[in-house]
Amino acid sequence: MKPLETYTVGMVGLGLMGGAIALALRSEGIIRTPGRILAYDRNPDTLAAAQAEGVIDAGMISPEAMLGHCDLVFLCLTPRGILRFMESQMAAFPAGTLITDIAGTKGSIVAAMEHTLREDLDFIPGHPMAGGELGGFVHARTCRFHGKNYILTPLKRNKPENLAVLKTLIYRMGFRRITETSAQEHDRKIAFTSQLCHVIAAALIDCEADTEITRFGGGSFEDLTRIAMLNAPMWTELFIENRKELLRRIEQFEGSLDRLKSAIAQGAGQELEQRLQRVRERRAAMA
Amino acid sequence: MKPLETYTVGMVGLGLMGGAIALALRSEGIIRTPGRILAYDRNPDTLAAAQAEGVIDAGMISPEAMLGHCDLVFLCLTPRGILRFMESQMAAFPAGTLITDIAGTKGSIVAAMEHTLREDLDFIPGHPMAGGELGGFVHARTCRFHGKNYILTPLKRNKPENLAVLKTLIYRMGFRRITETSAQEHDRKIAFTSQLCHVIAAALIDCEADTEITRFGGGSFEDLTRIAMLNAPMWTELFIENRKELLRRIEQFEGSLDRLKSAIAQGAGQELEQRLQRVRERRAAMA
Repeated sequence: MKPLETYTVGMVGLGLMGGAIALALRSEGIIRTPGRILAYDRNPDTLAAAQAEGVIDAGMISPEAMLGHCDLVFLCLTPRGILRFMESQMAAFPAGTLITDIAGTKGSIVAAMEHTLREDLDFIPGHPMAGGELGGFVHARTCRFHGKNYILTPLKRNKPENLAVLKTLIYRMGFRRITETSAQEHDRKIAFTSQLCHVIAAALIDCEADTEITRFGGGSFEDLTRIAMLNAPMWTELFIENRKELLRRIEQFEGSLDRLKSAIAQGAGQELEQRLQRVRERRAAMA
Repeated sequence: MKPLETYTVGMVGLGLMGGAIALALRSEGIIRTPGRILAYDRNPDTLAAAQAEGVIDAGMISPEAMLGHCDLVFLCLTPRGILRFMESQMAAFPAGTLITDIAGTKGSIVAAMEHTLREDLDFIPGHPMAGGELGGFVHARTCRFHGKNYILTPLKRNKPENLAVLKTLIYRMGFRRITETSAQEHDRKIAFTSQLCHVIAAALIDCEADTEITRFGGGSFEDLTRIAMLNAPMWTELFIENRKELLRRIEQFEGSLDRLKSAIAQGAGQELEQRLQRVRERRAAMA
């Protein structure tokens, strides 16, 4: 088997996450000469900057030109972008290419790949649980992987040796914990830990127009709303893509909020204190 | 006028905030010999620890014994604790004592002090916008003041020279910005930036029993729920004390959440994206 460090890796999309992965592959020495990091991005300036900084070996202006060289391809696009890319570029991958993606919802990608992926390709869907408020390649260095979670939702047909290679690479990028699960389970859990949190942060900002309110901030408001500086097109797509699970989670949350509201409205101190105490203990157990 | 560094300061309550203030007064050299830092706390072990660490000069086992020595008293209790303390100890303050507090709601304290405070005392209500998930004197060092906000809700009768002394002391403890406002305005704003955020964090934890959900965390869930590790008795009191404003804020938030939910349910991508874009811009303007 070809040693991982000699792989030619192709990045499709060199935004915040694609850029951060390329940076990690390079700075951690995971890919070394004769291994190469190539990238395709619709913005030629991004490719030029990444090449000038030594993050990638070469920027490619067409995906076909790049894919032909690759052992491993990282699709760093939105879920719909990934589906469109696979549909249009399926023929351009060399036989045996290992493909993975970073999309924040997995259901539609897994369903499509189970049915339409070429038999001689291996696609392992993934989701690095990292990110940042400021998007784009220029902010890739702000996106840290050390200590973070990574989710894989393997297809039934994935080759064990490819799964092993990808997991080695993920750990070497700094991620602390890889969880393998189904796309359905991923989308259910992520609707809570990620999408619901972003909806809540957005709603908090949506209901207060006074930007001077931060004079009254002590840290909690800032912490709860940092993620409200979201990439609007990407999160719109993620929310709508996973809307069934997300709506269920929003409703669960509304139920909990309503119970707290009732206890406050009734001045039910004892009930409220007990509920807050349970919350405190549960959160401590999560830490 | 007596120089600030020679004041005898009395801390009433040496928990997280009382401890952090005593630490700042000492470590920043704001109070120096012959000035002294005294403390009263219902837990004698806390007083012994604080004295052993050199944070206070002496721990007093009765408030009366302490108050007689003080030029400045910090009341570091809950709102009801402060009202009870002032009611029971009003006679023990020497004439001219400057008193301040740290309670997270100001309406009831200001109302009480406007009417019941002895004429020869000066009480300046305050709220340091700092804190931490882990309470008590043992965690006082985790509570940082540098760069934080401090709110003062002065009484009409406060002496300008006392207000100047207190503001000097607050800036020297490291706070970046002092906002003077009315108790009503404070309680309205704080219901949003602090109490609503704590209710939301608690509701988020309340609606998910699986503590292993953190395997699917990428930072946003952790950021939104860190404050769910709250001091249950204190926050119960703050929520109920300020319930009128807090309920209004919860309802505003529910309205915003409902609009986002509807857009998601309808798959209204364009509307959702526009709304998220406005949110992003507003949050950026707050930063």
